[in-house]
Amino acid sequence: MTTSLERLEQCLVRIHGDSERARRIFTHLYEDSAREEAQAADARARHGRSLGPLDGRIVSVKDLLDVAGTVTTAGSRLLAQAPAARQDAAVVARLRAAGCVVIGKTNMTEFAFSGIGINPHFGTPGNARDATRIPGGSSSGAGVAVALGLCEIAVGSDTGGSVRIPAALNGVTGFKPSVQRVPREGAFPLSFSLDSIGPLAASVADCAMADAVMAGLSPDQAELPERRVRGLRIAVPRGLLFSEADAQVLQAFEQALEVLRRQGAQIDDVAWDEWLSAPFQIQRKGTLIAAEAAAIHQPYLPDRAAEYDPLVLARIERGMALDAASYIRILQQRVQLQRAFDRRMTGYDLVMLPTVVFTAPSIASLADEEAFMKANALALRNTSVFNFHDLPALSLPAPRDAQELPVGLMFAGARLADRAVLALGLAIERALHAA
Amino acid sequence: MTTSLERLEQCLVRIHGDSERARRIFTHLYEDSAREEAQAADARARHGRSLGPLDGRIVSVKDLLDVAGTVTTAGSRLLAQAPAARQDAAVVARLRAAGCVVIGKTNMTEFAFSGIGINPHFGTPGNARDATRIPGGSSSGAGVAVALGLCEIAVGSDTGGSVRIPAALNGVTGFKPSVQRVPREGAFPLSFSLDSIGPLAASVADCAMADAVMAGLSPDQAELPERRVRGLRIAVPRGLLFSEADAQVLQAFEQALEVLRRQGAQIDDVAWDEWLSAPFQIQRKGTLIAAEAAAIHQPYLPDRAAEYDPLVLARIERGMALDAASYIRILQQRVQLQRAFDRRMTGYDLVMLPTVVFTAPSIASLADEEAFMKANALALRNTSVFNFHDLPALSLPAPRDAQELPVGLMFAGARLADRAVLALGLAIERALHAA
Repeated sequence: MTTSLERLEQCLVRIHGDSERARRIFTHLYEDSAREEAQAADARARHGRSLGPLDGRIVSVKDLLDVAGTVTTAGSRLLAQAPAARQDAAVVARLRAAGCVVIGKTNMTEFAFSGIGINPHFGTPGNARDATRIPGGSSSGAGVAVALGLCEIAVGSDTGGSVRIPAALNGVTGFKPSVQRVPREGAFPLSFSLDSIGPLAASVADCAMADAVMAGLSPDQAELPERRVRGLRIAVPRGLLFSEADAQVLQAFEQALEVLRRQGAQIDDVAWDEWLSAPFQIQRKGTLIAAEAAAIHQPYLPDRAAEYDPLVLARIERGMALDAASYIRILQQRVQLQRAFDRRMTGYDLVMLPTVVFTAPSIASLADEEAFMKANALALRNTSVFNFHDLPALSLPAPRDAQELPVGLMFAGARLADRAVLALGLAIERALHAA
Repeated sequence: MTTSLERLEQCLVRIHGDSERARRIFTHLYEDSAREEAQAADARARHGRSLGPLDGRIVSVKDLLDVAGTVTTAGSRLLAQAPAARQDAAVVARLRAAGCVVIGKTNMTEFAFSGIGINPHFGTPGNARDATRIPGGSSSGAGVAVALGLCEIAVGSDTGGSVRIPAALNGVTGFKPSVQRVPREGAFPLSFSLDSIGPLAASVADCAMADAVMAGLSPDQAELPERRVRGLRIAVPRGLLFSEADAQVLQAFEQALEVLRRQGAQIDDVAWDEWLSAPFQIQRKGTLIAAEAAAIHQPYLPDRAAEYDPLVLARIERGMALDAASYIRILQQRVQLQRAFDRRMTGYDLVMLPTVVFTAPSIASLADEEAFMKANALALRNTSVFNFHDLPALSLPAPRDAQELPVGLMFAGARLADRAVLALGLAIERALHAA
């Protein structure tokens, strides 16, 4: 059993082994305080004391979450001159109270507003498997840092897929909780309706422990029931969300599905396009995210427009064009659609689909704005549906050969069934690894 | 002790005694079913059974609430051809379950969107004291019906003052609850953020009983603690909300204040204009009500614009001009302002101010659109502040001579302190009557 300090030093060795790379992954490192925190955790362990299962774990924090004493950039130069945060974000405080060692703040898409992960201000973290490829976003640094072993758990945020997309494209596990479960105090907002804060890690167990701490669960509430794949009822919504998929993504998906079927899961193909396409149809005039981002950025615009990533600015400006009545109607229709989708979900434990229908393309291939916008819309397509419906969703890496690019398998559960999804995720992870 | 049927028949005699007047007050009467309900209540009473303190009480329902079998017009010709409601609104079902006798549906401002009470489609209910004067709105028929003894309790709705204004102008008691306490299922909406459903009656006790039933309180929860005026801490926010006031309104207010002071209330003049004017300042570009009304009426507009009251249509159309980002910012600022106002309220049990700063003007004097809009804005000014802050508020009639026009005294309490406000209202009502 290695100590927290030993594991921290291993992370730091990997970080300093390629400091050019690390500068694009982390916007800030806390080497000194992290060493102190790790030593304190180790001292507790020597005295047989523990702050819980996360005591001494090495954690990074997406740079839209406040860490006391550091400027929260949200991936933007616009905020670089802002005053340093005076206190930790609520989730950071909870993780510290659980003994976590905060190693650094991770880079991200500016203001968390794209699923690709390109950042013209702080540099783009290269994909963990191939640095010429996109990391996925918006929690780009988080996904790459976990995959490269630069931290053990990364805290990300997910408004349209920003935890699950980098998890999928870098081959790690990511969990998007229900919006209301995890407090957002001290997080720079993108969308009041949709922002959620979730973990990325190498395993479901680590995600589940981080989620329990961030959601403020008691040890009793945090305990996951033992579940198995046999008898699991899984809906596979073939149709819209399987369109435009890469052959290798579909192949990895079908192989994983076959493993679960062989282990006794009951798999049903379902025709749910009516509910899965509805978020796009009712947001044709403009999206909740864009309108809420426009409200948040109104104080900076148009005066400081030149300081934005033009690709992010273009999306915010689209939000400014939406009228209030249409926005309100989207919110109202959303409630109706959520109820209808809940009725669909009654017969199933999980919905299973590819997290992203492509593997990471090269950064160079998205230099053109049109190519970027198209890839971005497709990257966010499957994940964003479950933000709209506000259902908990887990992305697991499909079993793949080491030389292949990662593929993510998404499992979404019933309303507020966050812990059930994680418990089922443990069983599915075991089944996929055993196969 | 009169029976329910005797009291119902008295109401019906008054109604039929001036059927021309009644046609403007009620959009629908339920004579037959009301008689059956009253007889059933009387039969229960004879057998010593009771459905609670409202068993056998004569209740009217504002015509934006569904009553099974009747078309809900919301005061508009636009909905006159709509199918009849298939089930009672949630509050109507609760009142029936508590034994109430539903005598009829009351007229209102079209779509509840003005504080004056003029209705060009169904006629304007004349003020109870002088039928050439406005009734106040939007629960116009409700206020007049209670004041004329055409029912004992009237169910209204209050989005910007629509319970309290007709209560004030007709000399009855009206209570606006906190939005979340009373279910709105089966109510035609004006504003999702602000709509609340509250009672009008001749006494605080009747309002409190109706509120308890509509909010679904258990008998234990419904019981009001005995309170007294001595030691009561009352804030009087002199400034903006006392401006443009009629001399006779100010005089009635000061007299009532003096009664409370003499009985031992601690009265503080407070300078709260910053928080009381904020709702107007942050909604200069457009209001929550107008934007939400625009969303609700989008399906009918512009095609059926000609069927609207032009004064109502003008207000809805203003809401269409608001952009989503500004709307969202109002919602966000509202949360901040509510927190700030809650801190102000800490030292006080109640805020006391005139409900409306004028007595009912003549209907003829508001025929001109500019005069109407000015009077409407002033009618809604004081009441709407407490919808914006979502605080419970009670309007009590100031003690006045029978020949004088009624004046309302508004008492608003702390967040979600609905029952406390009603308990204090009982004590204040007693003090004012004793004086």
